[in-house]
Amino acid sequence: KVLWTVLVTMLGYSSSLPVGEDALCTAEELAKYRIIFTGKWSQTAFPKQYPLYRPPAQWSSLLGVTHSSDYSMWKKNEYASNGVRDFAEKGEAWALMKEIEEAGEKIQSVHGIFSAPAISSGTGQTSTELEVHPRHPLVSFVVRIVPSPDWFVGVDSLNLCEGDHWMDEASVDLFPYDAGTDSGFTFSSPNFATIPQDTVTEITCSSPSHPANSFYYPKLKILPPIAQVTMVKLKKSQLGLSAPFINLPAKTNEIIDTVS
Amino acid sequence: KVLWTVLVTMLGYSSSLPVGEDALCTAEELAKYRIIFTGKWSQTAFPKQYPLYRPPAQWSSLLGVTHSSDYSMWKKNEYASNGVRDFAEKGEAWALMKEIEEAGEKIQSVHGIFSAPAISSGTGQTSTELEVHPRHPLVSFVVRIVPSPDWFVGVDSLNLCEGDHWMDEASVDLFPYDAGTDSGFTFSSPNFATIPQDTVTEITCSSPSHPANSFYYPKLKILPPIAQVTMVKLKKSQLGLSAPFINLPAKTNEIIDTVS
Repeated sequence: KVLWTVLVTMLGYSSSLPVGEDALCTAEELAKYRIIFTGKWSQTAFPKQYPLYRPPAQWSSLLGVTHSSDYSMWKKNEYASNGVRDFAEKGEAWALMKEIEEAGEKIQSVHGIFSAPAISSGTGQTSTELEVHPRHPLVSFVVRIVPSPDWFVGVDSLNLCEGDHWMDEASVDLFPYDAGTDSGFTFSSPNFATIPQDTVTEITCSSPSHPANSFYYPKLKILPPIAQVTMVKLKKSQLGLSAPFINLPAKTNEIIDTVS
Repeated sequence: KVLWTVLVTMLGYSSSLPVGEDALCTAEELAKYRIIFTGKWSQTAFPKQYPLYRPPAQWSSLLGVTHSSDYSMWKKNEYASNGVRDFAEKGEAWALMKEIEEAGEKIQSVHGIFSAPAISSGTGQTSTELEVHPRHPLVSFVVRIVPSPDWFVGVDSLNLCEGDHWMDEASVDLFPYDAGTDSGFTFSSPNFATIPQDTVTEITCSSPSHPANSFYYPKLKILPPIAQVTMVKLKKSQLGLSAPFINLPAKTNEIIDTVS
């Protein structure tokens, strides 16, 4: 368990994790996970243009899906769907939920949708449960960065199945992405549609390479992670009646303070 | 099915619905429902001080729980918990999720937590699934009105069990409540803690009886419903793989336009 956690964390998240079209999942039955999203968007870590008012830095609802490799919610260097655009620009989830539903109906590539409540500050946590299936072992989700033009964090097709068993725990550092649909440069830029639409790109401390960009930190080599996600497999005894938050602190700041 | 829907709708929602401490639920097994929340907070229906900018009128994430009569998430004329206060004032869900978890652990009064994504405008829809249990047949949830001092809509302990069977469908009109923790009078009032804390009260077109109040419409007898919630029992064939949005339109405005 520890090994895998460490490994995944060290590698950072990449879509070439032990996954893919060919990796057959022969795990038995379903598995349930608690997913915990931790915002690390503090003014200390990201001082430039940190949004303090109307609205202050915060995170949208988390919207996710468990699926097979026949479905993709979003992918780096590909065009965002209309649903992902609405979510990344406005936090509006309905179109994306409809896209997921249609993928489930048409090609049975989806097992389930999950969502977790928004977080009202840049640092804090939210959580929910999700269920994976041997034919649908992949997890994808998005959380909008608020305020921002069309920026989000998330994971794309993280595989929770390792051959014949389910991972005990997976933890991934998250970095900002640009959905490619709004050309705003800063957190509070006014709406300005990107026409034609661009692909989804990672925002780094040097790209977009322009001093006005909110994440442009020319002295850094890489941005600190702006968020983190952890998925912990629930034991059968933990299913059903509560026990979802075991080992989590009463106040989210306790975790934040020790991590940062 | 139609009969119950009509009946519940006509009665409006009240905590004295066929429920309660004494009404034993002898339904077999669990039941799953799709819950659909529809915001009806339009500028046409609520012209006074309708919030257009920073932020415009919108709804927070929906946070809900299925439980027994030993647990109460919120109740009219009683004091809001710290968790409900954080949620109603800021949309911050963590403390409320912890309260629910503790109720589940200590007195096993909780079956599960559910949440649905926020809605980025005053009119629109969001949805998720929930599960009820014969010992935990009650549904409660809250959705924060954004922007507002501490105002929310929700239901308190709606019983989905009718003796030996589960209701097919329940639909309830929703009206605004004041959590009693912030004394702001209008949607965009600055924070102003209510000390000592007041109880949860319904906001009507005449109460608080002051012309500055955002919902004060002296010419109306009652406010139009600001939102609506519908819970539809899922058939066993609809469980698991998708089929969650059956019969819902592609665009949320289609429903809104025909309803209002």
